[in-house]
Amino acid sequence: MKLMRVTDPEKVLQIITAQFEPLEKAVICLEKAGGYCLAYEINAPENIPGFNRSTVDGYAVTAKETFGASEGIPAIFDNAGEVLMGQTAPSIKPGQCCLVHTGGMLPKEADAVIMIEDTEVTGTTVQSFNQVAPGENVIHRGEDLKQGDSALKQGHRLRAPEIGLLASLGITEIEVNRRPRVGFFSTGDELVNYNQPNLKPGQIRDSNAPALLHLARQAGSEAQYGGILPDQFAIFVEKSRAMLEEVDLLVFSGGSSVGTRDFTARTMQELGRPGLLVEGISIQPGKPTLLANCDGKPVLGLPGHPVSALNIFKIFGKAIIDRLSGHKEKLPLPTIKATLNRNIASRSGRTDYVRVKVENSEEGLKALPIFGRSGMLRTLAEADGLLVIPAEKEGLSAEETVEIIPWD
Amino acid sequence: MKLMRVTDPEKVLQIITAQFEPLEKAVICLEKAGGYCLAYEINAPENIPGFNRSTVDGYAVTAKETFGASEGIPAIFDNAGEVLMGQTAPSIKPGQCCLVHTGGMLPKEADAVIMIEDTEVTGTTVQSFNQVAPGENVIHRGEDLKQGDSALKQGHRLRAPEIGLLASLGITEIEVNRRPRVGFFSTGDELVNYNQPNLKPGQIRDSNAPALLHLARQAGSEAQYGGILPDQFAIFVEKSRAMLEEVDLLVFSGGSSVGTRDFTARTMQELGRPGLLVEGISIQPGKPTLLANCDGKPVLGLPGHPVSALNIFKIFGKAIIDRLSGHKEKLPLPTIKATLNRNIASRSGRTDYVRVKVENSEEGLKALPIFGRSGMLRTLAEADGLLVIPAEKEGLSAEETVEIIPWD
Repeated sequence: MKLMRVTDPEKVLQIITAQFEPLEKAVICLEKAGGYCLAYEINAPENIPGFNRSTVDGYAVTAKETFGASEGIPAIFDNAGEVLMGQTAPSIKPGQCCLVHTGGMLPKEADAVIMIEDTEVTGTTVQSFNQVAPGENVIHRGEDLKQGDSALKQGHRLRAPEIGLLASLGITEIEVNRRPRVGFFSTGDELVNYNQPNLKPGQIRDSNAPALLHLARQAGSEAQYGGILPDQFAIFVEKSRAMLEEVDLLVFSGGSSVGTRDFTARTMQELGRPGLLVEGISIQPGKPTLLANCDGKPVLGLPGHPVSALNIFKIFGKAIIDRLSGHKEKLPLPTIKATLNRNIASRSGRTDYVRVKVENSEEGLKALPIFGRSGMLRTLAEADGLLVIPAEKEGLSAEETVEIIPWD
Repeated sequence: MKLMRVTDPEKVLQIITAQFEPLEKAVICLEKAGGYCLAYEINAPENIPGFNRSTVDGYAVTAKETFGASEGIPAIFDNAGEVLMGQTAPSIKPGQCCLVHTGGMLPKEADAVIMIEDTEVTGTTVQSFNQVAPGENVIHRGEDLKQGDSALKQGHRLRAPEIGLLASLGITEIEVNRRPRVGFFSTGDELVNYNQPNLKPGQIRDSNAPALLHLARQAGSEAQYGGILPDQFAIFVEKSRAMLEEVDLLVFSGGSSVGTRDFTARTMQELGRPGLLVEGISIQPGKPTLLANCDGKPVLGLPGHPVSALNIFKIFGKAIIDRLSGHKEKLPLPTIKATLNRNIASRSGRTDYVRVKVENSEEGLKALPIFGRSGMLRTLAEADGLLVIPAEKEGLSAEETVEIIPWD
């Protein structure tokens, strides 16, 4: 029997980056830009802010006229009026000040704002019991962004702060890398659609499809489901080829038997060049994973066991979607820290993904490993996340602090 | 001048839980159930799996007939055929075995599966060079879930594993707590819509609205924007009241001036009982935050500075959305660990949110604090996340390991 040639998980991620390219560009409106990656560098078309603004409620003044002011010897100003929000500030003359609200424009003669707490008003006279330095309580024209400055680099993913920044610049249409389309097929003659109410002996419902579609959408792709493919090579290849024309990533899920894997691997070889790149990953669960490059498009063969299929798609499926989306960030996944409640064994040379429940206790968060075969979805639904035991470790000890990647 | 009464961030989260209730129930289909929380406990309507399944490719046997088998003295079986996937397994007689694939059904007489690697086939004779225990390489009927067992508890949030579990049970319609509708108003006469190309002096674009709408949708709500409200009390109250009838959470963003805050606070008192609950949070940036309960509906007044508004909505707006959605999980937010590259000062008694950039270096991940006023969106767009300095700390030292909440 042929042994499976396995690849390191880190190496698989490198292969994904090396083999596949970000998709072509598309223009989208700002309201829908969240999650997309910029296809170009954006330079600020104007200054932000466009005028000198007060950061407090107070009186705009020429700073040097406050020098020496104190509780005992206040500086005295004549109140020249109020800056109305959204309007040009009035002028002030020497010895004058002007009421300004947070965010309001400074008169062109003013270079600082005295906080209202430091003043006392009698009629049109304003006393300042404090001195201010030039620039104090002012955000200057162009201080956030100068016209022409780089605002966001190519590949930057658009989160809420970026959306706000682009809105402040009045940029409402943005060039991004197109979002990937992902197509899913299920395989295995034992599978029936999950909406089938009654099962015959030997049948099981295709539970991977809706779970994977959800994961793919969460990862920022448009996901579609092609149904359950029969174990007949000609039909399998024909349907796969048709789907691959429509999508940017094709995913097979189902059957973990050697026969089904061989079948999927043969299909991958038919679909394009160079074909199969990875025929197993040194990871548990999830070892029998296939990855191919079929004429530039990634094709992923997931293991059939539900726990393995979801774990693998969460890590490697998402990595492919990120790559196609033009995502450049290379930060690790965020984790929750907890104390392990027992020892866990692990084989050196293999990365282990352990399902973990996280519980609050008086001594802080506890990580409780959940054991159970990778066919058992209940064990994954009980888990708050995954604990990764790196290949070089031979297990973990009780009371160790561990980091858990949450299922979200 | 009146001092702002501030509330602890932890206390604000407790107020949110105590004052507001999950929304009413709704029925949704499984395909769209991701992110919703279960409004009831789900018991398994059937066994999962529904039959004894093989977890490997091999030969189904009666385990005791393999006892004593070894490399030198194999156990010998007559091959009674093959279990076809999705079909009832054939019967086997004493001395017989049956080829079964991963996921296939076991014959009712078989109680174990010999792995194919441990066998050799000659014609219809199968030699087993290994013994198997009863139950070995088998997942039993009901082993994942027994009919009638609790599959998922009320309040459980539906992620990919839960969607898979429900699909495996054939449950395609689910009762959940309805998703909250969130309405946003911007306030401040200096604001103009962000799609306005040219600004007059003193005007700025309403950059908070699109950023907050994105955050609210990410947090699992349906978000709508009501526009920019003028600073006229009667109109302000009338428009707010109309919006509050349509939504489950009303959010004001804009103006940080004392006048604007007072205005928003007065509106909240008009909208319903008991009215204002929080008139400031001991947090930096984000202190001038308002929270009210208006006849059972939460109304949130965000600080006007963009960085503050986004931080506060990310933490407290999301907490309100989670509460209304029926979310019960109380795990901390996941973080990225990194080493701080410099000292940061912080005032004791106040929780500080510091913008941080995370960079890869030879010694691992480095956390680089980004300083800048809370009006500056660029500083937030440059940041990978937030570093929280708890109220009891008086700053952090260079080389400390810190945890960063990523902006996603």
